[in-house]
Amino acid sequence: MKSIKETAGKIKRLEIQGATNVAVSAAKALAQDLLDAETPAEAARALDEGVRKLVSARDTEPMLRNGLKYVQSHVPRDWTDRDEFREAVERASAEIQGFFKESKTRIVEIGARRVRDGDTILTHCHSSAVTGTLVEAHNQGRRFRVIQTETRPKYQGRITARELVEAGIDTTMIVDSAARHFMKEIDFVVVGSDAITSEGNVINKIGTSQVALAASEARIPFYVVSTLLKFDPVTIRGRYEAIEERDTGEIWDAPPEGLKIRNPAFDVTRRDYIHGVITEEGVISPHSILEAVHRHYPWILE
Amino acid sequence: MKSIKETAGKIKRLEIQGATNVAVSAAKALAQDLLDAETPAEAARALDEGVRKLVSARDTEPMLRNGLKYVQSHVPRDWTDRDEFREAVERASAEIQGFFKESKTRIVEIGARRVRDGDTILTHCHSSAVTGTLVEAHNQGRRFRVIQTETRPKYQGRITARELVEAGIDTTMIVDSAARHFMKEIDFVVVGSDAITSEGNVINKIGTSQVALAASEARIPFYVVSTLLKFDPVTIRGRYEAIEERDTGEIWDAPPEGLKIRNPAFDVTRRDYIHGVITEEGVISPHSILEAVHRHYPWILE
Amino acid sequence: MKSIKETAGKIKRLEIQGATNVAVSAAKALAQDLLDAETPAEAARALDEGVRKLVSARDTEPMLRNGLKYVQSHVPRDWTDRDEFREAVERASAEIQGFFKESKTRIVEIGARRVRDGDTILTHCHSSAVTGTLVEAHNQGRRFRVIQTETRPKYQGRITARELVEAGIDTTMIVDSAARHFMKEIDFVVVGSDAITSEGNVINKIGTSQVALAASEARIPFYVVSTLLKFDPVTIRGRYEAIEERDTGEIWDAPPEGLKIRNPAFDVTRRDYIHGVITEEGVISPHSILEAVHRHYPWILE
Amino acid sequence: MKSIKETAGKIKRLEIQGATNVAVSAAKALAQDLLDAETPAEAARALDEGVRKLVSARDTEPMLRNGLKYVQSHVPRDWTDRDEFREAVERASAEIQGFFKESKTRIVEIGARRVRDGDTILTHCHSSAVTGTLVEAHNQGRRFRVIQTETRPKYQGRITARELVEAGIDTTMIVDSAARHFMKEIDFVVVGSDAITSEGNVINKIGTSQVALAASEARIPFYVVSTLLKFDPVTIRGRYEAIEERDTGEIWDAPPEGLKIRNPAFDVTRRDYIHGVITEEGVISPHSILEAVHRHYPWILE
Amino acid sequence: MKSIKETAGKIKRLEIQGATNVAVSAAKALAQDLLDAETPAEAARALDEGVRKLVSARDTEPMLRNGLKYVQSHVPRDWTDRDEFREAVERASAEIQGFFKESKTRIVEIGARRVRDGDTILTHCHSSAVTGTLVEAHNQGRRFRVIQTETRPKYQGRITARELVEAGIDTTMIVDSAARHFMKEIDFVVVGSDAITSEGNVINKIGTSQVALAASEARIPFYVVSTLLKFDPVTIRGRYEAIEERDTGEIWDAPPEGLKIRNPAFDVTRRDYIHGVITEEGVISPHSILEAVHRHYPWILE
Amino acid sequence: MKSIKETAGKIKRLEIQGATNVAVSAAKALAQDLLDAETPAEAARALDEGVRKLVSARDTEPMLRNGLKYVQSHVPRDWTDRDEFREAVERASAEIQGFFKESKTRIVEIGARRVRDGDTILTHCHSSAVTGTLVEAHNQGRRFRVIQTETRPKYQGRITARELVEAGIDTTMIVDSAARHFMKEIDFVVVGSDAITSEGNVINKIGTSQVALAASEARIPFYVVSTLLKFDPVTIRGRYEAIEERDTGEIWDAPPEGLKIRNPAFDVTRRDYIHGVITEEGVISPHSILEAVHRHYPWILE
Repeated sequence: MKSIKETAGKIKRLEIQGATNVAVSAAKALAQDLLDAETPAEAARALDEGVRKLVSARDTEPMLRNGLKYVQSHVPRDWTDRDEFREAVERASAEIQGFFKESKTRIVEIGARRVRDGDTILTHCHSSAVTGTLVEAHNQGRRFRVIQTETRPKYQGRITARELVEAGIDTTMIVDSAARHFMKEIDFVVVGSDAITSEGNVINKIGTSQVALAASEARIPFYVVSTLLKFDPVTIRGRYEAIEERDTGEIWDAPPEGLKIRNPAFDVTRRDYIHGVITEEGVISPHSILEAVHRHYPWILE
Repeated sequence: MKSIKETAGKIKRLEIQGATNVAVSAAKALAQDLLDAETPAEAARALDEGVRKLVSARDTEPMLRNGLKYVQSHVPRDWTDRDEFREAVERASAEIQGFFKESKTRIVEIGARRVRDGDTILTHCHSSAVTGTLVEAHNQGRRFRVIQTETRPKYQGRITARELVEAGIDTTMIVDSAARHFMKEIDFVVVGSDAITSEGNVINKIGTSQVALAASEARIPFYVVSTLLKFDPVTIRGRYEAIEERDTGEIWDAPPEGLKIRNPAFDVTRRDYIHGVITEEGVISPHSILEAVHRHYPWILE
Repeated sequence: MKSIKETAGKIKRLEIQGATNVAVSAAKALAQDLLDAETPAEAARALDEGVRKLVSARDTEPMLRNGLKYVQSHVPRDWTDRDEFREAVERASAEIQGFFKESKTRIVEIGARRVRDGDTILTHCHSSAVTGTLVEAHNQGRRFRVIQTETRPKYQGRITARELVEAGIDTTMIVDSAARHFMKEIDFVVVGSDAITSEGNVINKIGTSQVALAASEARIPFYVVSTLLKFDPVTIRGRYEAIEERDTGEIWDAPPEGLKIRNPAFDVTRRDYIHGVITEEGVISPHSILEAVHRHYPWILE
Repeated sequence: MKSIKETAGKIKRLEIQGATNVAVSAAKALAQDLLDAETPAEAARALDEGVRKLVSARDTEPMLRNGLKYVQSHVPRDWTDRDEFREAVERASAEIQGFFKESKTRIVEIGARRVRDGDTILTHCHSSAVTGTLVEAHNQGRRFRVIQTETRPKYQGRITARELVEAGIDTTMIVDSAARHFMKEIDFVVVGSDAITSEGNVINKIGTSQVALAASEARIPFYVVSTLLKFDPVTIRGRYEAIEERDTGEIWDAPPEGLKIRNPAFDVTRRDYIHGVITEEGVISPHSILEAVHRHYPWILE
Repeated sequence: MKSIKETAGKIKRLEIQGATNVAVSAAKALAQDLLDAETPAEAARALDEGVRKLVSARDTEPMLRNGLKYVQSHVPRDWTDRDEFREAVERASAEIQGFFKESKTRIVEIGARRVRDGDTILTHCHSSAVTGTLVEAHNQGRRFRVIQTETRPKYQGRITARELVEAGIDTTMIVDSAARHFMKEIDFVVVGSDAITSEGNVINKIGTSQVALAASEARIPFYVVSTLLKFDPVTIRGRYEAIEERDTGEIWDAPPEGLKIRNPAFDVTRRDYIHGVITEEGVISPHSILEAVHRHYPWILE
Repeated sequence: MKSIKETAGKIKRLEIQGATNVAVSAAKALAQDLLDAETPAEAARALDEGVRKLVSARDTEPMLRNGLKYVQSHVPRDWTDRDEFREAVERASAEIQGFFKESKTRIVEIGARRVRDGDTILTHCHSSAVTGTLVEAHNQGRRFRVIQTETRPKYQGRITARELVEAGIDTTMIVDSAARHFMKEIDFVVVGSDAITSEGNVINKIGTSQVALAASEARIPFYVVSTLLKFDPVTIRGRYEAIEERDTGEIWDAPPEGLKIRNPAFDVTRRDYIHGVITEEGVISPHSILEAVHRHYPWILE
């Protein structure tokens, strides 16, 4: 369980970041330790404890959980031939990594088609799927402007800014509070997602739902780019998606004594505010997410 | 013109801050230099140039302009008896300062009655009328919670936090992006104002309209506490209220080369989002502002 | 203080009902006891205690309070000639009763003009101004339908039903819950009011705001018929209009042990849901109420 | 046809009530009489007339119709071996009853997860799926409040009140008209359903759509708990769901002569007002109902 | 009554068009015939019959009625000195024409300030106040685009188009149905008005309310330019503003037999859809119209 | 390629009109020329060039493209037996024509059930599916009114008017601008469609979205009748549906020099405004379109 422990630690300490990176590393680590198992019992323990450990390293990441579940359910429990077992482990690991990679490629390709010459596009926080989409559209020769929020408290908007400016895209930063003020200039909004629920709602960085509301008020299209692998199956079973509360020092390191601080990392954007979700299936309505998951990754719903 | 120059400088360098402080200092400075004038011609010059200088030190402050206008129109242009002239100057100066002071006392007294035991109140930015109202309600024995945004880029929410915590009020800080996320817990929102237009709209710190929108979406009452002296008469004549753009370094001091930054200081909250305005006349609808100004300060509209 | 005590008792026991009846009786009783006073001191006591007693008999009736205030402020405190004093009392009493009566006549006359042949009109609860308006329109020869709610828990809709059926108007009763279901058939909604606030909101029987919401959703005009004498001046000073909670037995006389029951008598309909208020000034927007009170009954605002 | 006649009679006289009870009894009665049939011709007559009779006993109950249809289509028409035929009848009867029972168990289990400690939940009318869900959550140790309407004209809210109070849940009753007045205190609304249409709309007790509207206005989540077996297949074929009008004496037993009374039993809540439907598939958007029916009970759509 | 008859005829035959032209001509004609009157009786007859005749020539023009009313109430009924009488007539006539002219000058001057460089402005139908405003802004050197609807059935948009193109303004015509399609490009909408009601609603060319709705949906400011002289005092007294139905041949000159055609000339835009009304008082909220009329033309309300 | 060329020409010159006619003719022409092919190479060329030619004759018709795609993918590329090949061509051609015909029959049958006695129905432009539905309902004996817009600039409303009047339906024509004015009288709106996108939006004649907005504002149901064959698969892959701009002479044949004219033929009605889509699957929510296409015509999505 060496790889598992090491990787779980890195995930916890934020040394591994980004939903895809986290999910890929965890799946790899799980597979690595499974390959070392010498008996079915050993393998079973690695599998069950390993998944528990890796999931608890970041418990609001459905893609991480979905990836581990795939390995867990595609690896035999009873085996006699270790080589065959190892082959099954490697295949499962390769398959899930393939899903992660191909889905990203596909949504960037589809998303880029939504960007037109002359557009002004608003984004919030940082999402590699969003910046990937914008850079792809720029590389295909389209010329457009991006306005992006700084995204307090962690300023992930600065990461977005650097990536876009480096790619040569015309980029303007604003404070989070100014999103509504600039909405008149915007052609569409596009953000990433951390999780999608069975009702078709999107969980993303705190402030996303506020931007969505301002877009909706002005009838500006609001798009989410997200692989279907971020669908959270616990929500269909009635659970609420948990909203992580982070360290208050991120907001004010030396607050006056007695002041309380609340620091939720995410908020919920209801499906009513979302024009379309750009997924590996294509541009679909958020209401179609559940069906698309049934079509592409039925094992998530088992 | 010594006082005028000095005060205009301090206002420009933000050494004098807060709409009331700015307006009071400017009116005093103008009066001071008028008192030194020895001839009507000298006085007229001090008056006209003084007003111009002081207004241009902060050109989006209707209360400053209204205060100066009051002095300007209540001081005789033609005079022979310098004592009588000086008396008129002192009277006008005292009167306008009286208006500033009494209106504040009155709105704090009225506003405090809106606070009930057990309420949770959201505020944005810093307004001495808002904190005055809340502290008054607390001093009268009511117990309630305040949630307040940090208010990027200048973190004026921290000033609010300090004042409320020092007064012993239960206070919680959040990032600006989290206003909608916490809206379910709020009983009412209350903010200050920088200017009020003839259509009944309120100009206030960037982000105010976004908070108002989130309140409106959830049907949470949204109140503005503001003296009628912040009514901007240029708006009735068709002009748009100017929105100051401030230094981009407030947002990011070392941005990557090529990144643009936009930093508007204010935004417009339309009357439709405002349940009531707490003024020296009482709690009124924003549509009644123009009538209330006609009743209380008709000289503003001349 | 015989009349005052007697009348206060009857008001408390609901033997005198309806905002106008209550206000008229109280003003008469106050005048009656003032006429009996033999010294200014006696009169002053009757005035101050009488008003207190009468107001506390029904403390959520601004028209009652406004009527008593009128008498209170139009009767001399220092007097030597008892005849002159009695004359002043009778004049004040006659004047306020005149206001009550004329305002009713006027709003019925104006309101009746809003009813067209073929209209279907929805009303909630019982208001003599509403039934007066409808009967007047019917008497003028117009033919229309009325749909009215039963108005739980006290079934005041049955009083409305009887009055309209007796007048020969085509009348249909529904349960309160069915208002939205029938909204498609409605041409306009009309209700009475118990109080109007300085923000332009209307306090009326519980359920009014729900009907207003359903009307607003379908863009059906929603009218309030109300004398300006129902304006509540405490609201402009920041106070909330109190919402009376009535006996729970009105809802269920023999509930299972442990069950809680809540029985608020009124709710608040915000000005945004009100197309027009039919007052003695005419059909105006609810935002104009404060100005109309300034014009017609400035003494209410003193 | 003895059982069929008897059961149809009981359903008509409301001696059998509740969508599930009605559907189960009808399926049982149909099976009973089929078991007695001695020839295919006799069986066919029992089947066709029986279904007609049972359906017409309550013609606005899709679950009743769906249950009978299941038996009808899973029983052979041509048979020679009576034992095999009886076996098929018993299997079909057992299967449909199993669907009714399991779907209820499943939605109660899923729904209970939506209830959090400290929640205040509003419900309208009586639904065994709703009270089952709330009691299950209470039994799992969560502590919450319920506010429930009395539900005129038949006061089914009193049945809800008794069940919840007996289970030890903190319960408050209000009149139907007060739903909007208390909306600020509500964390979510949950109601049952009588039928679901192909557009994703829910037919439920009169007043449901008004509660949904008030919830929507304040952005309070509105949930429906309902088995997919309540899907009405006639709606996909273009028919409107019929709305039963009940006896007017339920509203007023001794109305004045000439008064009309309208007493629709149900209203339509459009999918736009529904956050989620809690079904045997899980918590899904109302737009997904059609797909979920395709997945779980494709025979309903044949 | 020669002038009166002649003018009434021209108004009826649309030889005199445009609210201001109609009102000016009628006031002039009335004055002309009054000047000819040789006795008070003759004058009274000219006055009463004249007003009746002129009003009935176009009975949905409040400005016409207001103008005639002004003359009617400012001319003495009892007189002995004919010269004095004639002087009074000429003064009243000159005054009302002065009001018409000055109000137009003033609203064009104020309205022009709302136009900024780079704006795209949408207008519907033809209004000389609107084209006057736009041409004034253009003459002051601002450069902007106008999109204007063709305005079926009479194509008044073509008159607008000609005036704007002749003035050198960048102008684009669209069909009425395309207003929403182009709304994203619009900075503000501006239209004229035929009448303003006591509730603050605006009556204008059919289609105006549809454009206002599309603007409101996208939160695009919607302005009305209108003199307060278009306030219709019958509305405050409860009357509905009449909506003229015009000849169906305007829509289709040779329709198939049996086809009905409806051709209302105006529709009602409610105050909720109007950001501001540009009047001789300045830019005000539509809710302030009644107060502004009280301030400027109190005689309209008598 | 004779048939292909001829048909493409007719489509271009609008000699063949209406989505179904265009699609049928193109499929027939393609089949015709394929039947003449003597070698696989010849057939392949006819297929590829033919499709290109026919598609480019009207490039915003998904039904045309879907039909050609069906033939293209159901005809073998490699063949040796010409008779078998010709048989395959004829089968594919017959099948796609069958789909076109049966889907129309089915939606007319389903749609007609939505029409009730006494309804007033609004329609915009001309759609044979809409008039088919209305005539079918009329033929079944239901009596209702239709209000239909004239539909500038091409007056297709006149075609609708003629068809309905000839069928004996009570029909009223209005200008496009009057749709909102008459909305109060409408029971439901029904329109056709040119294309449906993967997000569930409908592309139809310019003005459709404006009618939908007015219906939505008044909560009037808005239905679209459309075969699923109008689903445009390029939209799921991220492309925007193109909006054709037509000749400006359609709007004004002799405009003043310098006037610009814009003439978009279609606009987009978002799924939020659509109550239901009447398709060959039945009446479904627009969010279900994608799933219904998967069920009925999976080859469209390949």
